[in-house]
Amino acid sequence: MSTSTQNRGEPVTPVTPAVHTAGVAALLERGRALTTPVLRAVVARLAPPMDSVAAYHFGWIDAEGRPTAADSGKAVRPALAVLSAEAAGAPAEAGVPGAVAVELVHNFSLLHDDLMDGDEQRRHRDTVWKVHGPAQAILVGDALFALAGEILLELGTVEAGRAARRLTAATRKLIDGQAQDLAYEHRERVSVAECLEMEGNKTGALLACATSIGAVLGGADDRTADTLERYGHHLGLAFQAVDDLLGIWGDPVATGKQTWSDLRQRKKSLPVVAALAADGPASRELARLLAADAGKSDAEFMDFDEDQFAARAALIEQAGGRDWTSQEARRQHATAVAALAEVELPERVRAELTALADFVVVRER
Amino acid sequence: MSTSTQNRGEPVTPVTPAVHTAGVAALLERGRALTTPVLRAVVARLAPPMDSVAAYHFGWIDAEGRPTAADSGKAVRPALAVLSAEAAGAPAEAGVPGAVAVELVHNFSLLHDDLMDGDEQRRHRDTVWKVHGPAQAILVGDALFALAGEILLELGTVEAGRAARRLTAATRKLIDGQAQDLAYEHRERVSVAECLEMEGNKTGALLACATSIGAVLGGADDRTADTLERYGHHLGLAFQAVDDLLGIWGDPVATGKQTWSDLRQRKKSLPVVAALAADGPASRELARLLAADAGKSDAEFMDFDEDQFAARAALIEQAGGRDWTSQEARRQHATAVAALAEVELPERVRAELTALADFVVVRER
Repeated sequence: MSTSTQNRGEPVTPVTPAVHTAGVAALLERGRALTTPVLRAVVARLAPPMDSVAAYHFGWIDAEGRPTAADSGKAVRPALAVLSAEAAGAPAEAGVPGAVAVELVHNFSLLHDDLMDGDEQRRHRDTVWKVHGPAQAILVGDALFALAGEILLELGTVEAGRAARRLTAATRKLIDGQAQDLAYEHRERVSVAECLEMEGNKTGALLACATSIGAVLGGADDRTADTLERYGHHLGLAFQAVDDLLGIWGDPVATGKQTWSDLRQRKKSLPVVAALAADGPASRELARLLAADAGKSDAEFMDFDEDQFAARAALIEQAGGRDWTSQEARRQHATAVAALAEVELPERVRAELTALADFVVVRER
Repeated sequence: MSTSTQNRGEPVTPVTPAVHTAGVAALLERGRALTTPVLRAVVARLAPPMDSVAAYHFGWIDAEGRPTAADSGKAVRPALAVLSAEAAGAPAEAGVPGAVAVELVHNFSLLHDDLMDGDEQRRHRDTVWKVHGPAQAILVGDALFALAGEILLELGTVEAGRAARRLTAATRKLIDGQAQDLAYEHRERVSVAECLEMEGNKTGALLACATSIGAVLGGADDRTADTLERYGHHLGLAFQAVDDLLGIWGDPVATGKQTWSDLRQRKKSLPVVAALAADGPASRELARLLAADAGKSDAEFMDFDEDQFAARAALIEQAGGRDWTSQEARRQHATAVAALAEVELPERVRAELTALADFVVVRER
């Protein structure tokens, strides 16, 4: 059990691999630059008003329809998809339909999950169902999912069919993960194994697909694609473990989220379930507090002051939930990087996939 | 303009082609028998509780989870999909994955549309969102859509990729149609052309896909598939025109719906928009009444007695909306049957596709 007294603001993962920040920024920017114009063109195929609702969701226009330059996210998936094509010896461009299809599925799930979860904010903006109503959130989500199949299958190649099949499998896992998330909301106790399985479905599956889809489109065999997918799956789990740390101890200035964000939402994230699974007085005290919290209305809970959340965060840390999750991020990072050793790759691609894995665990937003 | 005084209970379409009822019943039963076991097995792939929610939606279990034998619909699409395979000279079984995929997409759209439209009943039962909540309706709809892609793409053939592409195109039209339906709800006037376009998207596209998907899986070329799709599109428009007639003048005992069902829901269906588009005193009086209705709350509207709906139905008929829609059903039927002449088909298949088209226009439920 940890008795560490690390404060918020410090890096959440003690591991500091040699990440060349400028290199990773360039990789992410390249993925974004290749993907965004195609994504915009595909979304523009939607009939009004679905095209505008989608453009609002992606942060391209505001609620009044004026062009904006909203935060469009880290773009890890597009970077992975174009690298994935190069992993198979194909040009980066061969991965672009895969990158676009994965982004479409990711955003389809955001639109529907925000509505199912009643989340009113995403990336500092009102969610689609808040602005355009529940029906548009459902409908435009459906339309993005359909567009994802369209952009792959219209390529008309055998490879595109295989890519579409992998994307469908990943989407089914995404849906399984959301089903688990909804079920766990109503449960008092969730095990670490259940939490990891849910995160594997919700985050791992689509990151895994991003990492293999470019290679599949570029003509890679199943073994290569499966190994890249394994890298992506563990990368996704590392990514989510770090997200769960940032959700409690992240610097609000960097993450753009409220302090103690996941605690405010009573999320049963990894640090929480790991702390509850531990033995000892901090774990028992935490369990007692959270059981009492569960009985409170959202309004009562909102009235909590900073100290009350800080007390819960301190108990999670004392019970070892923070350390366990940091170690889990490092374990998943190591497993991801090890998978890369099992597949023949151009050396530059291997170095870039490794750099992306390093970035995922040291990022602060 | 018609001044006919036909009563409810009479056939809604004056045309009576030589339909061999027993033969059509056998065709529908064959499609159902080939499709249902595979559909059930595919739905059983869903993780709990999605499998039960889907089974409830399909009418296989009741809200308490007990097996039931609820009305599972007419099963026109499965019958078309297996006939479609035979149209390409393949065995009926080759069309089954297509039939299942089309049924999955159809039911995905029902789950989401019922929630978007706030419909509380379907086939005499509470809708999924009423019984299991909006989140499950969204999630299980998504899951059925994903399963549709899965069952086709796991075949792993070039033909399956082409079939999946056609299904995706049809799904996009389905979504376009629902977007139009939602938009028209808030408009005072909808033109006949707009109504026909919406019905082509909401009903024509998936029926068209059902009619070509078996042939595509059976190895047909694009020209054959396109011609079959044209037959299916016009069949779908004929089907919907008849549905719109049954929605006002159908016999409640046969349809299982309330009297004046579409009028109670203030649907801008074909007979209504055709009547409003006509000239003359009945059309103007109808427009006046419907404009006043639009200002009423649902509760006020529910208090209407039979006579008030009967008066509206009589005005629609006097303004020619009923006759125009009957003629439209016959026009679409004739165009569908004419398309069949443009393609080489085994004679039995041609006869059966013709019999199904005849059935669609004379059916009373």
